[in-house]
Amino acid sequence: MSNLRRSVTLASRPKGAPTLDNFEMREEVMPKPGEAEVLTRTLWLSLDPYMRGRMSDKASYAAPIAIGAPMTGETVGEVVESRDPRFTAGDIVVGAFGWQSHIVSSGDRLTIVPTGVPYSAYLGVLGMPGATAYAGMTEIGQVKPGETVVISAASGAVGAVAGQLAKRAGARVVGVAGNPDKCLYIQDTLGFDECIDHRAVMDLGSALRDACPKGIDVYFENVGGDLQDAVYPLMNDYGRMIMCGMVAEYNDTKPRPGPNLMDVVKKRLRIEGFIVTDKLQRFVDWRAMATPWVADGSLHFREHVVDGLENAPEAFIDLLRGHNFGKLVIRVAEPSKGV
Amino acid sequence: MSNLRRSVTLASRPKGAPTLDNFEMREEVMPKPGEAEVLTRTLWLSLDPYMRGRMSDKASYAAPIAIGAPMTGETVGEVVESRDPRFTAGDIVVGAFGWQSHIVSSGDRLTIVPTGVPYSAYLGVLGMPGATAYAGMTEIGQVKPGETVVISAASGAVGAVAGQLAKRAGARVVGVAGNPDKCLYIQDTLGFDECIDHRAVMDLGSALRDACPKGIDVYFENVGGDLQDAVYPLMNDYGRMIMCGMVAEYNDTKPRPGPNLMDVVKKRLRIEGFIVTDKLQRFVDWRAMATPWVADGSLHFREHVVDGLENAPEAFIDLLRGHNFGKLVIRVAEPSKGV
Repeated sequence: MSNLRRSVTLASRPKGAPTLDNFEMREEVMPKPGEAEVLTRTLWLSLDPYMRGRMSDKASYAAPIAIGAPMTGETVGEVVESRDPRFTAGDIVVGAFGWQSHIVSSGDRLTIVPTGVPYSAYLGVLGMPGATAYAGMTEIGQVKPGETVVISAASGAVGAVAGQLAKRAGARVVGVAGNPDKCLYIQDTLGFDECIDHRAVMDLGSALRDACPKGIDVYFENVGGDLQDAVYPLMNDYGRMIMCGMVAEYNDTKPRPGPNLMDVVKKRLRIEGFIVTDKLQRFVDWRAMATPWVADGSLHFREHVVDGLENAPEAFIDLLRGHNFGKLVIRVAEPSKGV
Repeated sequence: MSNLRRSVTLASRPKGAPTLDNFEMREEVMPKPGEAEVLTRTLWLSLDPYMRGRMSDKASYAAPIAIGAPMTGETVGEVVESRDPRFTAGDIVVGAFGWQSHIVSSGDRLTIVPTGVPYSAYLGVLGMPGATAYAGMTEIGQVKPGETVVISAASGAVGAVAGQLAKRAGARVVGVAGNPDKCLYIQDTLGFDECIDHRAVMDLGSALRDACPKGIDVYFENVGGDLQDAVYPLMNDYGRMIMCGMVAEYNDTKPRPGPNLMDVVKKRLRIEGFIVTDKLQRFVDWRAMATPWVADGSLHFREHVVDGLENAPEAFIDLLRGHNFGKLVIRVAEPSKGV
């Protein structure tokens, strides 16, 4: 083990889309864990669209990352040194945050990863994105059999789980994704009823009308932009819009106009946002429910693996462009005992 | 009793704001009730902003009024002739619909008005507007003590009840209305904490910020337009927008842009519409709760009375401009036995 800790830090705030200039790799002396703290060596780092929000200095639900501070992100790590009696060197844990090779965390934030599923699954299907899909579909979506559900960014970490949950609830599920390979995967592997390749259709509205002849009852919003414009007029009476994210607009320098809300009155729509980390019980409930499904292969997930912490900035820039295919994770290091 | 029935019919569909040309008074031979039907003589007719929607041919939650057909509206009537054994001549009933001097209805639609409160109250505070305020505040608003609630069209039939319910729930309540007399009434009689005269302030956003130093938790939307634009950025985390109507936009010939929905994600907002008549139980529950409050004077209401069915079109045009002060009702005729 080198005696330096590597971190990807925020060098400057992006104007519009982030560029490589906005990030800087720094090295520093390896930190030591204090009382009740744990030093982990990062194995896997999760990259997710919400991190774009933290790079801005606009007020949001979480404080912005300070210039010069490490980027934030969920990790799976291996305990190197522990001053919390619940952890010992070699344990594999989730809960340490940062685009960093090594992280010091309070032991209270860490959870030992159970064996039986790949470690990286705890950043995706069993982690924040999976719990997000679960919370949105159960608390807001409340899908009934026979309803039509549209999932944006449907091959992504959140969308893939959201759509599979809607199928389990007996809905007709239509995915929207950005290339033919993703659509093939969404229909053939994830089992959605239809998929629209939004880059291949001339008119998103008419493609959605064709795919949803009975209108749209539930929309899982990860994207915003033109897709939201096309979905909104097709919402049925009592429709629910699960407002999870709007990645197509994260690089906008000023907000676009939204939909006129008179349809909310006429159609009794419910448009509701949520932040999964507001209730940590969601993670507990979701992992209890979904771990057997991951173990038996009935809940499908796909990862897009990029090797090396130094490649995280470029991978993140590509994520915001939709260039990933599946949950984007950075393989930062190998575990000392093998996977 | 004349042997003619007078009706205000829809002569043509308005483009933008309705004009007197859009209405036509017709007379015809008095209809006779069929089997299980009841003929009522209208005493009071309710005029409400939602009727503007029925004059258009756009798809909405209710079918448009046909050209040549009578305008729709709740009434209080006196039974003239009944072929339903539950009603006899002289009974006072609600449930007959139409801008008409006499109406034939199925007996199943009618309810005998209890004595003890003025008949017209069954069109306002104890009728559709009161039940609307109740449904929106309880099902969507769910106000907690200490929260800040903003009520638009606050001296109107719905707003006045909504705000008084919010006060009963322990909230700080800020009304928005269109002239100083209304604001005085809202603060002094209805007991709201503050009132903003939207025609008197230079900057609605800063007036709202001053009146709501802790932000807005619940917004009761009757108005839309500039007020919605000013309220939306001030919504607090977990805020609820009760989408009841947007009267400022009813005469628009094309929809205005709405708010960008990224705030819904960041702030976990809930924006939800409802139509009170979807669940008739709401009327039953509300009348059971509120009738004692009307009888003991603790629930305040104010009526704007216009005499004569022939004056309904002009009164309705003024209603959409906010020229009424209190619940607008047309006194069509006097009861045969006195009030």
